[in-house]
Amino acid sequence: MTLILTFLGKGGIARTKIAIAAAKLLASEGKRVLLAGLAEPTLPILLETSLTPDPQEIAPNLQVVQFQASVLLERQWEEVKKLEAQYLRTPIIKDVFGQELVVLPGMDGALALNAIREYDASGKYDVIVYDGTGDASGLRMLGLPESLSWYMRRFRQLIVNSDLGKTIAESPLIQPLISTLFNFNWTADNFAQPTNQVNNFLEKGKAALANPQRVAAFLVTTPDPIEVASSRYLWGSAQQIGVTVGGVIVVSSETNPNLTEEFSPLSISVVPDASTGEWRSLMDALPDFAQEALKAPKPIEVDTHNRQVRLFLPGFDKKQVKLTQYGPEVTVEAGDQRRNIDLPPSLSGKPITGAKFQNSYLIISF
Amino acid sequence: MTLILTFLGKGGIARTKIAIAAAKLLASEGKRVLLAGLAEPTLPILLETSLTPDPQEIAPNLQVVQFQASVLLERQWEEVKKLEAQYLRTPIIKDVFGQELVVLPGMDGALALNAIREYDASGKYDVIVYDGTGDASGLRMLGLPESLSWYMRRFRQLIVNSDLGKTIAESPLIQPLISTLFNFNWTADNFAQPTNQVNNFLEKGKAALANPQRVAAFLVTTPDPIEVASSRYLWGSAQQIGVTVGGVIVVSSETNPNLTEEFSPLSISVVPDASTGEWRSLMDALPDFAQEALKAPKPIEVDTHNRQVRLFLPGFDKKQVKLTQYGPEVTVEAGDQRRNIDLPPSLSGKPITGAKFQNSYLIISF
Repeated sequence: MTLILTFLGKGGIARTKIAIAAAKLLASEGKRVLLAGLAEPTLPILLETSLTPDPQEIAPNLQVVQFQASVLLERQWEEVKKLEAQYLRTPIIKDVFGQELVVLPGMDGALALNAIREYDASGKYDVIVYDGTGDASGLRMLGLPESLSWYMRRFRQLIVNSDLGKTIAESPLIQPLISTLFNFNWTADNFAQPTNQVNNFLEKGKAALANPQRVAAFLVTTPDPIEVASSRYLWGSAQQIGVTVGGVIVVSSETNPNLTEEFSPLSISVVPDASTGEWRSLMDALPDFAQEALKAPKPIEVDTHNRQVRLFLPGFDKKQVKLTQYGPEVTVEAGDQRRNIDLPPSLSGKPITGAKFQNSYLIISF
Repeated sequence: MTLILTFLGKGGIARTKIAIAAAKLLASEGKRVLLAGLAEPTLPILLETSLTPDPQEIAPNLQVVQFQASVLLERQWEEVKKLEAQYLRTPIIKDVFGQELVVLPGMDGALALNAIREYDASGKYDVIVYDGTGDASGLRMLGLPESLSWYMRRFRQLIVNSDLGKTIAESPLIQPLISTLFNFNWTADNFAQPTNQVNNFLEKGKAALANPQRVAAFLVTTPDPIEVASSRYLWGSAQQIGVTVGGVIVVSSETNPNLTEEFSPLSISVVPDASTGEWRSLMDALPDFAQEALKAPKPIEVDTHNRQVRLFLPGFDKKQVKLTQYGPEVTVEAGDQRRNIDLPPSLSGKPITGAKFQNSYLIISF
């Protein structure tokens, strides 16, 4: 089982230093580590080596890869073309080359997430340390399985029952194309039993995200009050997409920056503001990531016995948290993140009988 | 004519401070200024006020708005629903509420860009200062008109001529839906003359982006060598999407951090690392943004007389710049940004007779 470890926070260079130190620490403990970073110069400068879009070993147990969206897009495109050629009599896109394709907003995140998924599935790594954007867009990316699966739940039945859906189902061409690209059959029957591949793929992603032994984020901040406020905001936002935040890493020359109250109940590790290359002092100050992630509060707990759902939403006050039910599911809004809660059958569709926001927990009763 | 001013660089809080100081400076000069920021706490803390998803005046000539993707998505959705109700006998999405919709990766950027476009078109502002993510994802957002218009150019003829396109054209339902949502008619004739609304919309965006009196970015960095390298990377990447970078703002306690060589030929303004609230010292050190943007090198120059295209690609060396021609257009790749060059008719489709990379310029001859 691979642990995917990532970091959230405003300070770009400090965050990358922590990611490198974490990767080095875990590799030194005998774990097989993949450090994955973005296509920009910080990671290669700090590692003092040029990076490639495929993993290369830079130390025992430690491989590094730099995600380049244009390369990842090229490779995905070749897969799509193969499928098209297999299913369509007159392929449309066969003459469009991956090497021409331009990256659109959002593709970076989706392609990186897919690459992480493949490295995860390869079984080659015990830990994948992902040094991403560390901000709200990074959270959108991690939340993709959850948010896409909501769109699937919400729209597919509407579309299948519609005139448009019927037209598609009757078309000799659109139906196989959709089946191929999205891996599901366009029939009401198939929609009714969500056992198809897309769903499995999204469900697998959701299950990984919900498991702190599989995905964990740590906050990186300085004691600067604005950075602390930003980190608290990211903490709450991470809970909204279901990612466990395992702890806080404070980069500071003070040994006790006294931020316990701001980040309670998380553990705080203080690391020195080390110069580039002084990895040892950073590594020595890092927490036991896997252990801390297990101890941290879970973003969501569904208690079917007491008919309660508890969401941990730190960093927000009561006014910033909204609970609504416009559609078929309960919607929770906080910090520009909206979450529709896919309840188990025993609670699904039941009316809300009460809700309170207490000690950073939103408690919904059914 | 509105100037859209934005900032690129790794240091999040410093960048937001510069954006605020720029907005205050321009407002004090009598310009009607809109300062637009992201849904996270830095901007409201620095301004010492809570912000809303609609502009509010915080000083004479100075309004502030905080883009919240979930609110923007809600509003767009209502527009889409109105159109659907108007054109489809049996609307599919009428029972899905904007208040349920989850933001997917890339939507933040697209929604913010659309909001900026609307504020720009309102004629209410002389300057829009956009304090965005300031990184590669911010550039993807600004590059959206250019990249989307390439997808339109490249795919629409292929699709119209295909079996799939014919099926769509014959469908009584899909055709009006596409016409409505994308504002164009699904006929080969209409595709042949790109005068429809989508194209106008994208063409307008491209024209604005190419005009330094309409859109200009400034780099914000400290003298830290890693930040300087990141800023140079963003500089080159910005050129690739066609945004003029007007100058560099160096946050430093030294008065002469000596970065002339790294950012030549841009002008460098050194601003103090001021405490929060000390706006005057920052404002006094800022450049004349409009003037500097006009003096800066243009990202692309097409010289039809000498049959040459010159692309300014600073921050990259020869090995990092790739010129290919897989598809019908010339593709330039640098810094994980790919650009397909939409040449004027006199050069379009002509073979490349030579290419060289010299003094940060890629010069292509036809």
